[in-house]
Amino acid sequence: MKKSLGARTLAYPTPVWLVGTYDAEGKPNIMTAAWAAICCSKPPCVSVSLRRATYSYGNIVARQAFTINIPSEAHVKEADYVGIASGRDLDKFARVKFTPVASDLVEAPYVAECPLTLECKLIHTLEIGLHTLFVGEIMDVKADLEVLGDKGLPDIEKVKPIIFGPETRTYHGIGGYLGQAFAVGKDL
Amino acid sequence: MKKSLGARTLAYPTPVWLVGTYDAEGKPNIMTAAWAAICCSKPPCVSVSLRRATYSYGNIVARQAFTINIPSEAHVKEADYVGIASGRDLDKFARVKFTPVASDLVEAPYVAECPLTLECKLIHTLEIGLHTLFVGEIMDVKADLEVLGDKGLPDIEKVKPIIFGPETRTYHGIGGYLGQAFAVGKDL
Repeated sequence: MKKSLGARTLAYPTPVWLVGTYDAEGKPNIMTAAWAAICCSKPPCVSVSLRRATYSYGNIVARQAFTINIPSEAHVKEADYVGIASGRDLDKFARVKFTPVASDLVEAPYVAECPLTLECKLIHTLEIGLHTLFVGEIMDVKADLEVLGDKGLPDIEKVKPIIFGPETRTYHGIGGYLGQAFAVGKDL
Repeated sequence: MKKSLGARTLAYPTPVWLVGTYDAEGKPNIMTAAWAAICCSKPPCVSVSLRRATYSYGNIVARQAFTINIPSEAHVKEADYVGIASGRDLDKFARVKFTPVASDLVEAPYVAECPLTLECKLIHTLEIGLHTLFVGEIMDVKADLEVLGDKGLPDIEKVKPIIFGPETRTYHGIGGYLGQAFAVGKDL
């Protein structure tokens, strides 16, 4: 038996990703985004939706670039903070003691303290409503050596990404291994 | 110290959502999608990226609608199976013993066995590359009574959504509560 909850943004999981940008003066900025996803395999792309009112919005339009930084659960407070404060008012990198690293590939900084970072070149902009969806082509993924596992790929249980639950506004960790994709279904 | 892993689709978490559609004959179909997200708050929207080659792609274009169905971890095998087989070859609903329910709001079926479902009307189509991004306006969210918690909202720990790790191709559960968003950062 299902209950109608109305037209709202309720779906799980949503990510907790930090969007890195430079402003007009070259000051690095980060903000938290949950309306974001991988959105194409070839070319590899991510989408992130931001409100036009955010400081990051103008930075992305001006620089045609952004980074996606995946914080570990140890940094849940920092990840939350940069979603509350605005880069218009302060240097959020300095405030949360994160280190901006200039990308060689795009005009945007990534976060040294995040175990996984994506450097993205803006290739599409889609106005939807309150949010604008930016599509960035992933030019490189960088991972901390400590989170690498089998085959040189990141181990999600070492990355420990944060998961956001919309509406209840809760953060959660990653849970146990459930099985191998494109494999467990074959048993059915 | 970060290692460059190249341009690839690596980010966590990505969702495991089932996209519900009708084909030209009215046969319900579902497929698994991980390149998907909430993408706008007003109007409430989700994006899902599909390859043109999929059966669901043509169904969405023809019906201008789809549903997003969030399976619980108990259905990880079913969720995986409908990402392997094609609706061109068989009735996937019947094969995994899922029950299609006709939406009253859009021309697409939702999955009775999924604890959370979103009925979506197609409002934008963006060709990116191998994948096409569809933006659907969320017309309603429906939840099983058993997964509702405080304030009548779904409890993510009762929904038990599945998380997909790209490249390693692994499924994971949801982990422990880490804190309240727009709140824990204020302690910093």
